[in-house]
This record gives sequence, structure tokens and C-alpha cells, in this order.
Amino acid sequence: MHTQATRAFPKTLKPAMVGAKSLPQKYFVSPDVFADEQHKIFSKEWLLIGHQSQLPGAGEFFVVTVADESLIVVRDQQRQIRAFYNVCRHRGSRLKEEACGHTSAIQCPYHAWTYALDGRLMGAPHMDDAPGFDKADYSLPPVNLGLWEGFIFVNLGKNPEPLEKWFAPLSGKFSHWNVSILQPAKRIEYDVHANWKLMFENYSECYHCPGVHPQLQKISPYDSAENDLRDGPFLGGFMQINPGKSLTMSGNACAAFVGKIEKLQRVFYYSIFPNMLLSLHPEYIMVHQLWPQSPERTLIVCDWFFHPDAFLSEKFIPDDAIEFWDTTNRQDWHVCELSQQGIGSRAYRPGPFSSRESIPAAWDRYYLRVMR
Amino acid sequence: MHTQATRAFPKTLKPAMVGAKSLPQKYFVSPDVFADEQHKIFSKEWLLIGHQSQLPGAGEFFVVTVADESLIVVRDQQRQIRAFYNVCRHRGSRLKEEACGHTSAIQCPYHAWTYALDGRLMGAPHMDDAPGFDKADYSLPPVNLGLWEGFIFVNLGKNPEPLEKWFAPLSGKFSHWNVSILQPAKRIEYDVHANWKLMFENYSECYHCPGVHPQLQKISPYDSAENDLRDGPFLGGFMQINPGKSLTMSGNACAAFVGKIEKLQRVFYYSIFPNMLLSLHPEYIMVHQLWPQSPERTLIVCDWFFHPDAFLSEKFIPDDAIEFWDTTNRQDWHVCELSQQGIGSRAYRPGPFSSRESIPAAWDRYYLRVMR
Amino acid sequence: MHTQATRAFPKTLKPAMVGAKSLPQKYFVSPDVFADEQHKIFSKEWLLIGHQSQLPGAGEFFVVTVADESLIVVRDQQRQIRAFYNVCRHRGSRLKEEACGHTSAIQCPYHAWTYALDGRLMGAPHMDDAPGFDKADYSLPPVNLGLWEGFIFVNLGKNPEPLEKWFAPLSGKFSHWNVSILQPAKRIEYDVHANWKLMFENYSECYHCPGVHPQLQKISPYDSAENDLRDGPFLGGFMQINPGKSLTMSGNACAAFVGKIEKLQRVFYYSIFPNMLLSLHPEYIMVHQLWPQSPERTLIVCDWFFHPDAFLSEKFIPDDAIEFWDTTNRQDWHVCELSQQGIGSRAYRPGPFSSRESIPAAWDRYYLRVMR
Repeated sequence: MHTQATRAFPKTLKPAMVGAKSLPQKYFVSPDVFADEQHKIFSKEWLLIGHQSQLPGAGEFFVVTVADESLIVVRDQQRQIRAFYNVCRHRGSRLKEEACGHTSAIQCPYHAWTYALDGRLMGAPHMDDAPGFDKADYSLPPVNLGLWEGFIFVNLGKNPEPLEKWFAPLSGKFSHWNVSILQPAKRIEYDVHANWKLMFENYSECYHCPGVHPQLQKISPYDSAENDLRDGPFLGGFMQINPGKSLTMSGNACAAFVGKIEKLQRVFYYSIFPNMLLSLHPEYIMVHQLWPQSPERTLIVCDWFFHPDAFLSEKFIPDDAIEFWDTTNRQDWHVCELSQQGIGSRAYRPGPFSSRESIPAAWDRYYLRVMR
Repeated sequence: MHTQATRAFPKTLKPAMVGAKSLPQKYFVSPDVFADEQHKIFSKEWLLIGHQSQLPGAGEFFVVTVADESLIVVRDQQRQIRAFYNVCRHRGSRLKEEACGHTSAIQCPYHAWTYALDGRLMGAPHMDDAPGFDKADYSLPPVNLGLWEGFIFVNLGKNPEPLEKWFAPLSGKFSHWNVSILQPAKRIEYDVHANWKLMFENYSECYHCPGVHPQLQKISPYDSAENDLRDGPFLGGFMQINPGKSLTMSGNACAAFVGKIEKLQRVFYYSIFPNMLLSLHPEYIMVHQLWPQSPERTLIVCDWFFHPDAFLSEKFIPDDAIEFWDTTNRQDWHVCELSQQGIGSRAYRPGPFSSRESIPAAWDRYYLRVMR
Repeated sequence: MHTQATRAFPKTLKPAMVGAKSLPQKYFVSPDVFADEQHKIFSKEWLLIGHQSQLPGAGEFFVVTVADESLIVVRDQQRQIRAFYNVCRHRGSRLKEEACGHTSAIQCPYHAWTYALDGRLMGAPHMDDAPGFDKADYSLPPVNLGLWEGFIFVNLGKNPEPLEKWFAPLSGKFSHWNVSILQPAKRIEYDVHANWKLMFENYSECYHCPGVHPQLQKISPYDSAENDLRDGPFLGGFMQINPGKSLTMSGNACAAFVGKIEKLQRVFYYSIFPNMLLSLHPEYIMVHQLWPQSPERTLIVCDWFFHPDAFLSEKFIPDDAIEFWDTTNRQDWHVCELSQQGIGSRAYRPGPFSSRESIPAAWDRYYLRVMR
């Protein structure tokens, strides 16, 4: 009986995948669903906000917006990276306006209340005669922060699962790429008029590649995908790179390898729920942060990282890789925007996934589990 | 008794008109009323979207937005004009981005699903191994479409009244003008910051003409109106054109007559509920489409049509008519925008219609009947 | 017992002030609170809209927007200043589009209904045959208007408290400044991205001055404030001006004194609930009107007034004062905008006022009383 039942499914389809369809319309257009996502996902999950290479020294900081909240991310005098809400405890003023910089203390521009880099209130003029006032009660509100492979994550929730536990299933998986010591070469930000989930679904299949990415298709065949993470918050696998080729405009390697990579003819693509896309090439890493702005709009921050030694070589041509992926990114965002437009129609009905779309189906399953 | 009762009304006023006032404020500003209109009127009535002259050959198409829905309007291989929702059945992508063009099939730009011009799904890569998948279940969603006097109408409702039945009361009324064979000379689109009903009310009276349209007033006296359709969805009549004059900048005829027009000193104005204004001149036809965008904003598409032979003459000066009405249109939209501004006030109360405003009053009556 | 209880408070703090904190978040971001304010405050209180010097002659008018309502303010043939809703009684059209001008009557641009400057309907074409129509029923809707010290106030409420009674507590207080005869030299409008209450709180304390206003601080010490109105709708007092100095860019007096000022080394700052800031200098008056546009946006209109004789002198340099305060205004609006940004955070909590912020605390108290 078991054999007979199983035979009804083609080999390339897992049972969970059978009959899977794209999500109902409300998940892409409803302000209520969007608010629910901001509450259940973006205010409770660990979110990628950057890489430790952005804050090399004590006193360096950057400002980042997470779920509509401005946060100050700073390396304190003990070289620990911390995050605080960018809000003065006196009358609520924004503290830091600059996107990044170096500072010895955090002073409010309104009434000059001054905080140490670890958040303690150090100075508050004319508050001594306020009865019952104690500086110790007015530290900057801290935000949970952790590092994984050199990437900085924050979590706006109360008492979240430790970051190490969350990432335990990926332990050691990326050690060959030396991710924690890599250095950024370029950042590009994209304002995409599409729901954030469409970009995850787009990233998770190459069924669209022949028509949408002609130059990628020449270097990496669309049907070469082999997935090793097929369920849960971490999804993906690798695709083949044609012999002697690289994912660059010229087709040649553009930098020294990031580590002792075993299989040089492979590019690895992983989605890390809920806001990270990690693309590992032999000579560089590309990382996307996805920041939902509204049901129909997403800010995407894309960084390219190389090995520190690569920057010293005369053969270092990072633009060869950056331009390749910038072109490919824009092709993807365009079809995501077309999807957003069509899904808003009264004629839209969830449509059937093909056998090449098992990872988008798995992403949707995990998403629905979190939203439950 | 009958005579006595009738005598109480001036001759120019019909009983239904007595005491008529402009509509209450909510009809011009309320998002709820607007949503109700989109549901009860723009999703159920026959709507003008163009003229068959826009699609001369098989494979020609244009894209139009109706009640927030993008539609593909195409002439298929059997030369039949059809309309479909512009949405792929796979994952909902927008299919056609161009405003118009020529195509042999409708192929989705995302994953290359391909539809014939009659809507049948012809190709869907990698779907053969999806269990139970049948192409016949995934045709493009069709939209009701019909032709009247060469004009193309669509209806988003289920099982609407046939177009022929809807237009039966106008049968033969416009045959002299040869409307179905006319050719377009110009399209102008206007973005008007006023509720769509204000433009219908404005079109339906010339009480405003002396002050608002000085150049029109010289050619066609504001008090010469005689209405022959005074109730229901089709309203209007004619006005006199001064002897030897034409509604053009120069005051001269600008083209050959569109047909064997009996009364050359008349211009006919009809409003066709809910989105068409039809203005018939001896030598050209002007047609407005009204597309409500919000309670306070309307897109107006205005086309000028001439007889095909007119285009061949050396004496053809279409701009003489187009400029005349473009100027007049803009004068009208301006006072409609002033009305929108004032009607939003807490001081606005419905005001009394004059004896020259019986057609706006009739239009309001029909509108309220449909909205009931 | 009384003495003992009192001794628990520092001298600089009044009992009502003890423990006072900034307002909860909703008062700065909630659309519901904003709508409530528009209803309870801006539709019921006396609001500053200008000064009688703006309308020197009969027939002169200006248009002003109050609580989303456009009003025509006009000096009629009997030289009385009146205000009307800018809405025609026929079909609701906006009557006056120009910001200001001179007119002998108010004629509607749509159908030419014509009103006298006292609001009576004088002409309405083709309405004679409308049964029961009486011009006397269709006067322009009037708005309550009053003058205080030459300033024009309106009140959208029904039967409001007379303006004289409202301002009785300030009777004679500003007579030295000759406010009613002053003439305007300059108007600057500011579009501030902050809740209107933040500007009142900002105006009401100089705790922020050392850091925010370096040039003001040199001329007028931040800790010299002495308040004489400490509770209710009128709040404020004076600050010292350093000997021989003036609040100008050069530090010198820029005009003749506005009257027989007793104490030339003082600048007086008063907030007049809910939309006026009155700043009295020996040689000029600065007046701010605050117009809330949304919870997070405020239009501020700032006027500078001088004595009529000052304009005749060669030593009249009004820009010396205007530039000084324009710079200071912009510094204030900037920190108000920073406050707005921070207060929107989930981390914002009402923070403790210092002893230098007793007037902002008093303003909040009165505001909460009106909103109750």
C-alpha cells in the first residue's frame, strides 16, 4: 500500500509540496497582515542589521531603522557592540541624526542630557533639584544584540531565544568562507515596490532564470539547483557554475578566494528567515537585508564582501561582481514588482507551484507557521 | 384640478425638478460612498474604454485600467475583440506592461507561461509533472465586452444585461454621424482634482457658460439648449450654433462633415451613464471617458474623431477643433475643482438648482436610484 | 503643618509642578487625538488669524485656512471686518481663489451668484422662476470675529464666549507697546514636521537655549527668566537683555521703540492658547500663528511688526531683527522635529521636567483640562 501511494508522486516532489499554491492575496496587500508581520516577525525574530566590519573601533556607531524604530549601534569603550533606541529619556528627542560616525558619548541635541556608550546617563543639567530624580533610572533603553559569523543581529522582543541557539543548526556550515573577517567593498540600496515575501520567493527558485536573467543563465544553468536545507527558517543549497567561469560580468574570477573553498564550481544560496539572503561565491559573499516598508514596498540593502587580502591585489576587480549582481538584482526586483501589481487584482487566485518551486513553497510553509 | 395643480409650476420646470438641490456632501468626499460607487456602478455597469479604430488588426492590443483593474484588450486571430484581466494564472504576475502594441501570444515575463489571444493557456514549463495539473483549467480570466456604434464597452459584473439591450433606447439615434467608422485624431488626458459626478453635472448645463466660457458663448448661445432625453441613464439634447459658425478656434468648419447631418446649426451633447460624454458636431465627434480615482480625483480621457475621408483633405485642420475644446474643457475642470474645494466645507449645504439645471438634477436622480 | 509640607519642595518648584512629566505618546502621534483637538480646540476657541493692518481699506480681503476651512476675511463698506466661509450657497463652489486683494462684491466664479461684502446675496441669475426661492435665505455663512489689541481672531464655535471676556485677564497689560497701531514689516511661513504642542513647549522654556541658540545666549542669559503668568491659557514672563544690547544680528537696536517702554532690558514672551505666541521687544513685536496640519506637521506663520514712525527713519533696519529670529526659529523647529521623531518610538516614555520647565508643564496642564 505504501509503495503504491508513494508512486503517485513524481520523484522531484516531496509529499508536503504536492498541490502547493502561492499565498492568498491578503498576504501581499493587507495592511492588517502587514501590521501582524511587524508584530509577530519583525518585533520578535533576530534581524540582520550589518557586519562587525562596519564598526572597527571603540566609539564608532551607525544608525539603523528596524520595524520603524531608529536604533544606535555602537562599539563601546570595552569594544563591545551595543544597540540602543535612539530616544532621549528626558523629553524623547532623537539623539543621533547622522547615519554613522565616531563619538565619545551620546549627547542629546535638545537639552544636552549625556549618556556613556554603554547607555548610562552621565549628565542632566538642572535635574539635581527635581525631587526623587536618580540618573540610574534613566539609562538609554537597550536592544538585544548578537553576532553570528561576524554579522550583527538585533531582536526587539523581550527575552528572545539566544542567537547561538537560533543559529545552532548552521554551526560550522560556512566556516570555509571566513565570513567573520571579510571586508565590505560596496553597498547598494534598492526601493522595491513589492511585498517583501515576493523577494524571498523569487530568490528561492531559478524557474524564472531562463527568461529573466539571460547573462546568469550562460554561466550557471537554471536546472542545476540542489537543495540541502529544505524546511524551516533556513532554506537553500547550491547551483553549478560552468567550468572556468565566475559570476561576474567578464565571466572571470574578480578576486582572491575568500577561503579554502572545496568546490569551486558551486555558488550557494541561502535564505535566513526573516530578512537575510546569503549568497556565497568562491571569491566573494553577497548579503541582502530586506526591510518591509508597507504591504507594497520593501527597502533592500545589498552588501558585497571580500577577503581583506583581496583588496591588496592588482587583480582585484570588485565591480566585475558587483555590476553582475546589480543587474541581476534589478531584473529580479522588476518581476517582483510585476507580481505585486497582478496579485492586487480581484482576478488573482493562488496558482500552482511547479516542481522547480519547492523552496518557495517551503518558505511559505515556515512563514505561515510563524504567523499562526 | 389637474390644470390647476400643473399651473403652479413654471413651464420650464417639470414636477420632478421642483425643489431639487445639489447632492449632500458625503457623495463628494466620503471614501465609503466612493467604495460603494466602485462596487455598485463601476463593477456592474457597462463602461466605455475606447473605440474599435484603436485595434485595426489581429494581434493588436491595448491595456486599460477599470475600477483599479488592469485589463488587456486584444483583437484575436478571428478578429474578435476580447478583454482579459492582466494577471498570470501561475503566480499572479502582470502580463503586459506596455500601454499598447502588437503580439502573437500573451507570454508572462516571469516564468514564461504562454496564452493564446483567445485566453487559452498554451505553454507552462515544468508543469507536466505537477499531479492533476491541466492547462484547460488555467485560461486567462475573461471580461465581458461589447461594441456599440464602434465604441468598446466592458462590464466587470457577472452576467450583466446584454449591451444591445442596454443601448436599445438609443437605437438608430446617431446613425447620421457614422460613429462606428470614424477615426481618432487626438487624445488628451486630464487629471482633475474633483469628484467625477461634478463633471457630469457641469457637462449637463450651460447656466455656467456666460462667465466660464466666453469664446463658446460667442458661437453657441447658453440659453439655446433643448433637451430630448430628460430622464434615466441617457441625458441631453442639442444647442444652437450661430449661422455660418463652427465650434472651433477660428469659428470655421475644420473638416468634412462626418455624415449626412440634417441640421448643421446644432451641436448635440449626451451623457451616457456612468462614464461617457458624447458630443456630436457636424464635422467631428468628441468623447470623454471619466475614471474616478478617489472621492476627490478623476482621470478624464478625451478623444476627437473625424470621418476617414476628412484626413485626406487639404482643408483638414483638426487642431482648430481640438484647441477649442481643450480650452473649454480646462475651463470646466477648473470650476469643478473649485466646487470640490467648497463642498468639503462644514458650511456646505445642498443648494437649489435653477430652471437651467434640470439635466444635472435628472442625472442626480438616476445616480441615486442606482446607488439605492 | 503647612510650613512643613511646603518645605518638602525646593523653592523653584511649585507644588503642581512636582513630578510633572512630558505628555504620553498618543498626544503627539494619534490621528484620533488630532481629530479631537480639531473639534474641541480649533473649532471652539478664539484663534489668531492676522492683524487689522492687513486690511487698511473697505473692500480689502484676505483668505485664511482655519481647521481645514477656507475663510474670506473682508473689511466691508462700513469698515467693519467680517469673516465668511468661502463657499457659494448655490452649488458649493469656492468663491475666492486669491490669497488677498480688493473687491467691491463677492461673485461666484461658477454661476455668477453675487454677494455684498456684508454677506447678503444680491444677484442669482435664473432663480426668479424657482418656486419659493428667496435671496434672503442664501446669505454667505458668517464666522464669529473679534479684535484684541488690533489682532484679528475668529471662532468657529456656536455662541462662543465674547472675545473681550476671554482676554479680560490681560486687560491693559500690553498697552505700552501700542500693538493695535503697529505695521507689519515681514511674514515668514514655516512647514514644521512636528506636533504643534512641541512648539508651545519649546517656546515656554530656555533650558534648551545654551546648546541650541548660541547667538541668543550671548545677548539674553538662558537662566534670567521670570514668569508672571504661570497657569491657565495665558503663560509667560520676561527675560533679561544684556545692557546696551538688542535681539538682532548686530546686537544693536534696529528701529525706534514701539512705545514708552519702561524696562528696555527686557524681552517678554507669552503664549496665548491655543495658536498664538507673542514676543514683545522694545523696538518690535514678533507674533507666531500655529496651524496644526496633522499629528506630525504644523504650519507656522511668523510676522514682525514695528511702529509706523519707524518705517520713516534712515536708521530702520528691520532685517537685523528678522534674520536674528528667523535663525532662532529654525533652530527651534529643528529640535522640535527631533522630538517628534523620538516620541514616535515604542521606547518613548514621558520624561521628567526639570525645574526650568515649569511653563511647559503648566501649558500641558491647561491643554489637558480643555481636552477633558
